[in-house]
Amino acid sequence: MILIKIGGGKELNIDNVCKDIAELVEKKEKVIIVHGASETRDEIARSLKSPTRVLISPSGVSSVYTDQEAIDIFLMAYAGLINKRIVANLQKYGVNAIGLSGIDGRLWEAKRKDAVYSVEEGKTKLITDNLTGKVVKTNKHLINLLVRYKYTPVICPPAISEESQIVNTDNDFATAVMVEDLKIKKMISLFAAPGLLRDVDDPKSLIRKMNREELHNYLQFAQGRMKKKLLGAENAFTAGLKIMYWGDGRVDFPLRKALSGAGTIIF
Amino acid sequence: MILIKIGGGKELNIDNVCKDIAELVEKKEKVIIVHGASETRDEIARSLKSPTRVLISPSGVSSVYTDQEAIDIFLMAYAGLINKRIVANLQKYGVNAIGLSGIDGRLWEAKRKDAVYSVEEGKTKLITDNLTGKVVKTNKHLINLLVRYKYTPVICPPAISEESQIVNTDNDFATAVMVEDLKIKKMISLFAAPGLLRDVDDPKSLIRKMNREELHNYLQFAQGRMKKKLLGAENAFTAGLKIMYWGDGRVDFPLRKALSGAGTIIF
Repeated sequence: MILIKIGGGKELNIDNVCKDIAELVEKKEKVIIVHGASETRDEIARSLKSPTRVLISPSGVSSVYTDQEAIDIFLMAYAGLINKRIVANLQKYGVNAIGLSGIDGRLWEAKRKDAVYSVEEGKTKLITDNLTGKVVKTNKHLINLLVRYKYTPVICPPAISEESQIVNTDNDFATAVMVEDLKIKKMISLFAAPGLLRDVDDPKSLIRKMNREELHNYLQFAQGRMKKKLLGAENAFTAGLKIMYWGDGRVDFPLRKALSGAGTIIF
Repeated sequence: MILIKIGGGKELNIDNVCKDIAELVEKKEKVIIVHGASETRDEIARSLKSPTRVLISPSGVSSVYTDQEAIDIFLMAYAGLINKRIVANLQKYGVNAIGLSGIDGRLWEAKRKDAVYSVEEGKTKLITDNLTGKVVKTNKHLINLLVRYKYTPVICPPAISEESQIVNTDNDFATAVMVEDLKIKKMISLFAAPGLLRDVDDPKSLIRKMNREELHNYLQFAQGRMKKKLLGAENAFTAGLKIMYWGDGRVDFPLRKALSGAGTIIF
């Protein structure tokens, strides 16, 4: 089983990604897909005059501040708009895709964080009304059932808490839990960059290959979302992953290129 | 298998509906749910400054004019916000619900209407860019698979066209197709009224019981959405339905009350 992660950047060419996924599925590969929608969410939030607010943890990791209104916008962007567009696009290429959020069938069950610390203007505050959680369990029965019957799951956050609240969660951590529960060995992550860059502003600084032990060294230089991706990758390897391809989701044949080593290969 | 239809009015008490569904599921009833979200869609459309536009067919049936932007808002309201809220609410009461749009697994496959006529200010116009269709086939394999493994499907439009476009479709007609494909005999429809009213402005004019043959007589008096409900009911009976309960979704114990005859029973 291959896990394909599609980033939430609007520059990604979803049609190209879906065409490549169809090719894999035709070759009898078992594929599950996890996608983001962060830029679409931010766009809808701005249109609804409820812009996305970001929390920065004391260790420098950013996350979205999620009150009830933010959850609603999250549902609209992730489970509504982007999930179904990807599903329809895959259907067009003959992939019998099914879209699922982490709520459906308790696919992603999360432990809700009671309170989180956030650094604002140098001061650390305790935030108590944040609807976020960390995925602790995935419904592997549901995934295996669908895959056995030739359906291709297309998965997105939010997750569901143990108390059945809808909670925002981090995709990179959630995929690491899926890797463990489903014994996934191979993962491809597509986003709006050529791969892992030594210098985020220089596409030529692409790192072609990296040993999983080296991941930790890069962590100290990484910022914001990239920091999460690296932490998520580290978790995925700890959970049993063998190889991870990072590639550019904006190009023609994005999966083929990533698999042939055009981006970053972590092993 | 019982099909429960939940209307798209904001006055419906979804929590009460879910509690009653949990009671049915606990009694080992096989339940599938189809829901609307029309008032939420209209609200989001207004917030996004893209208000819902209505087409009136020459025979007087109203439908939503659906361009690409309307489809996007449709996805946000139906497949995103309302579908996942119902799923999480059912999960809270121990029902292992899974939300699906008609797109997922080609659950509702529709024939796209190439062009529709619309009456505007007394003139009939031909509308060619309307993304709507009529459901012609349901993926009964998927529904039966999920139900067999104790999942409760929570279904909403849009549908997918034979060419894999996302198309708006009418819930009442789609449920009639499901009745036929899944051989459903019993259906409950909850909405923001006590049942079928002889006079739409007078809740006391409730019709308690009605023979399926009488449906047709009521059609001539019905307006807008109620006309569609009656047409849909007629189709469902033609497709093999044996009994249909119409009930108030705003009250305590809405399903129990509908099943005990507090609304309208059509047989």
